[in-house]
Amino acid sequence: MNATNDVTEQPLAVSLFSGTDDRLNAAAVLVAGAAAIGRPVHVFLQYWALEAFRADGIEANHGLAPEAGADGAGAVRRLAGLGQASWAETLRQAKEIGQVDIEACSLSMDLLQLEQQDLDPLVDGVEGVTAFWLAAADAQVLFI
Amino acid sequence: MNATNDVTEQPLAVSLFSGTDDRLNAAAVLVAGAAAIGRPVHVFLQYWALEAFRADGIEANHGLAPEAGADGAGAVRRLAGLGQASWAETLRQAKEIGQVDIEACSLSMDLLQLEQQDLDPLVDGVEGVTAFWLAAADAQVLFI
Amino acid sequence: MNATNDVTEQPLAVSLFSGTDDRLNAAAVLVAGAAAIGRPVHVFLQYWALEAFRADGIEANHGLAPEAGADGAGAVRRLAGLGQASWAETLRQAKEIGQVDIEACSLSMDLLQLEQQDLDPLVDGVEGVTAFWLAAADAQVLFI
Repeated sequence: MNATNDVTEQPLAVSLFSGTDDRLNAAAVLVAGAAAIGRPVHVFLQYWALEAFRADGIEANHGLAPEAGADGAGAVRRLAGLGQASWAETLRQAKEIGQVDIEACSLSMDLLQLEQQDLDPLVDGVEGVTAFWLAAADAQVLFI
Repeated sequence: MNATNDVTEQPLAVSLFSGTDDRLNAAAVLVAGAAAIGRPVHVFLQYWALEAFRADGIEANHGLAPEAGADGAGAVRRLAGLGQASWAETLRQAKEIGQVDIEACSLSMDLLQLEQQDLDPLVDGVEGVTAFWLAAADAQVLFI
Repeated sequence: MNATNDVTEQPLAVSLFSGTDDRLNAAAVLVAGAAAIGRPVHVFLQYWALEAFRADGIEANHGLAPEAGADGAGAVRRLAGLGQASWAETLRQAKEIGQVDIEACSLSMDLLQLEQQDLDPLVDGVEGVTAFWLAAADAQVLFI
């Protein structure tokens, strides 16, 4: 960020690797919060996060980190039962209100033998790591 | 960061998600190191990290990442036996010597059905994701 | 980054904690991509990532995150069978084409009772957390 940028204009770039619903939801909340205050967000889907964005499974149960335990799993089920939006729905809303670009990592597409038509429409395209770093210039960057 | 800031003045913001002792300890060491060189630090507790800050369990055993294995668990026990400070103690010391603000994520408070009185006094308050992003302006940001 | 720096000159600093092959590979790809566009990269090895850099085991199987499942493990094996470079090899190539400094965290060296001669030559030295933060000044920072 240079000295002339406004705070809320600094881009956010997220390298999203994890494919469990707890981490995906934390990521979606951080992305939606940044988009809501006007920041451009760029998300790069790798490995198990990319797998979670398959068109035929994005709203499925993707499990939780092992540390969640039975109590954590119960808490997540309770909140879902109360109507909490899924992480996919939170990302859909973020794209409606802000500038959120979601790109699949080309190496992970090869790993998982996916074509873009296999992915949910939330995914805008496929890019390599160089394109990710160029898009992440001047951004705050998270690995989730 | 703008061009007039000194290196050691750049804030650090940490979105702390993980609740295992190995990741919490890595986070505490990074936070304490940044605070020791004069950087303001802002920590946002989500999910299993927030659970680990419960007043009645902060010094309990929170387990390790699965990859630690038996050898890793033994190494962690050996160092604790030699008197290594817990991550909670490291954070307490960081708050004494520097500027460390620890806030609970309001969505995670709902998820875990917690009130602030349920949390260790290390936690300074509760905030939403927008407040986190405003506090993280100009900061380096980590997701742990 | 200040206003006079070129995009591709901003340093990247990585606090590398995870010791499974999927996360190490994601880290290696991000590091190599940044190095390839001319960015200085500084990697700080903690906990299970440091264990994975042992001279006698760096090319061994370090497992995957639990969320990989059987399908994910099969996909990783398939790509390795097709000749995909290991993460260690990707980091070696990154060091040949760019500026990549890999340092072991001194606290994690104590935890794992390691000396520098126990580590693969990819590791350039040992440093404390203060040195890491000074090296990370003006950098984008990832925790992986």
